[in-house]
Amino acid sequence: MKETTKKPVTVLGLGDMGAALANALLENGHPVTVWNRSQAKADPLVAKGAARGSTVADAISASPLVLVCLLDHASVHAVLDPAADGLAGRVLVNVTSGSPDEARELAGWAAGQNVKGFLDGGIMAIPSMIGGPGALVLYSGSRAAFEAHEETLGAMGAATFVGDDAGLAPLLDLAMLAGMYGMFGGFLQAMAFIGTERVEPEEFTTSLLIPWLQAMTGALPEMARQIAAGDYSSTGSSLAMQTSGVGFVAFSESLGVSGELMAPLERLMKQRVADGHGDDDLSSVVELIAKPSDR
Amino acid sequence: MKETTKKPVTVLGLGDMGAALANALLENGHPVTVWNRSQAKADPLVAKGAARGSTVADAISASPLVLVCLLDHASVHAVLDPAADGLAGRVLVNVTSGSPDEARELAGWAAGQNVKGFLDGGIMAIPSMIGGPGALVLYSGSRAAFEAHEETLGAMGAATFVGDDAGLAPLLDLAMLAGMYGMFGGFLQAMAFIGTERVEPEEFTTSLLIPWLQAMTGALPEMARQIAAGDYSSTGSSLAMQTSGVGFVAFSESLGVSGELMAPLERLMKQRVADGHGDDDLSSVVELIAKPSDR
Repeated sequence: MKETTKKPVTVLGLGDMGAALANALLENGHPVTVWNRSQAKADPLVAKGAARGSTVADAISASPLVLVCLLDHASVHAVLDPAADGLAGRVLVNVTSGSPDEARELAGWAAGQNVKGFLDGGIMAIPSMIGGPGALVLYSGSRAAFEAHEETLGAMGAATFVGDDAGLAPLLDLAMLAGMYGMFGGFLQAMAFIGTERVEPEEFTTSLLIPWLQAMTGALPEMARQIAAGDYSSTGSSLAMQTSGVGFVAFSESLGVSGELMAPLERLMKQRVADGHGDDDLSSVVELIAKPSDR
Repeated sequence: MKETTKKPVTVLGLGDMGAALANALLENGHPVTVWNRSQAKADPLVAKGAARGSTVADAISASPLVLVCLLDHASVHAVLDPAADGLAGRVLVNVTSGSPDEARELAGWAAGQNVKGFLDGGIMAIPSMIGGPGALVLYSGSRAAFEAHEETLGAMGAATFVGDDAGLAPLLDLAMLAGMYGMFGGFLQAMAFIGTERVEPEEFTTSLLIPWLQAMTGALPEMARQIAAGDYSSTGSSLAMQTSGVGFVAFSESLGVSGELMAPLERLMKQRVADGHGDDDLSSVVELIAKPSDR
């Protein structure tokens, strides 16, 4: 029975994401103990074979790996603090959304409870993707804990260790989400533009926009190199060239469409030109938004 | 000699893009006649075998296909109007950047000159990409003209016909650029975030961000379908869920980074929730930016 060799896991917090994580672990044959403040949320998982922790302390005591997926950082402390004694010698993995500083605070607190290791996880997926091929989870904190439990963590999604600083996973999570929302914002603007004529949204998206966006990701590594070097000298289309025509905001207005999603980047590009950096590439705009002390 | 079977092309306007187009045609064996207001810009092309048009009329008379690549719509008329008589019976292809309405105006004007056909082109490439595998040019207007000259047009980049309305190519061009700038804006925000810690920009970009963005393009067709149907019912992560945590603007401030690139989308998402559409998907935001009469 291969299942019995899988390590036990405790999951605290059974919202949509926590339940999806517990379900993926169950389906991979792990003995799973679950706990949620409102106990009814555990019922479907118990019906599939999970053990119900009657208290947080009871649930923690069941497994060497304790996974916490709650609403926010305050909820994590509200749930863990009264049961902190039981964490000694166990690995604590927090996948509750939060900031890098919150992850670092929790890492320090966990060390004070003599945990065997602490990991903070950034889940790059929605609940329905958990356990499937598209789910990615970034982890940072204790490398030893990650390596010891990599197979278990992999049951929920591709598990990638990004560094010893517990704050790195939430930071990279938020950076990747920023990239995604930027792309989605540009997509919505494109939809508003084509909506002014009889252009079929799905065909435009699949046959033209997606191949174009995928091709344009090819420009990102060079921009990243420029940002790392602080040298933005244009290799193709300078900011002066890119801002020389009619801008997106004016173009949007001429079509009767809001240009507000495009306005900040257009303003920042023009500001860089006005500041004397018209020969730079677009990457140069990072100077106007990055933390001043980093530059 | 295969080259001698290639059709003659005249290129009016030899800025960076016009020169790249003429060069690609030359390298594909087309007899090319070039003209530019400041004649020196023609010299490198003449040295490679192009014929020099001494006047616009002279250049137009040399070829059945006339390609115009100038600064803007006004420049196109300033150059073509005095030589309009010579356009009769020829195909006019305008790849000067402009609005859909400018393309339609030019299409009507060209019809008045009894051209054999008019095409407006949207070039999805920078000059250095012209003639290479990554260059894409969208054309709209006369389908017959496109089909008759498809091989010639293909020498400059993958040639795609997008519709009979001459305004479609510039509209789709701008929609695709909006998508690209959205993605680039999100990338710059990601760079600002990771810049607060010792994360290597290029490694993050190539190993995490690009695969993530390419995977997330998979969400766009469903969003496009929702927009086409006007039905945004959430299939995964609702606007209410997406806006429930700490927003990017507040998160950016906590890191000492500007969140201005993320602010408009965040505001629009929250507005949709406040308006009672919290159960919708992100695609629902298009209602707040699209032309009101389209909805």
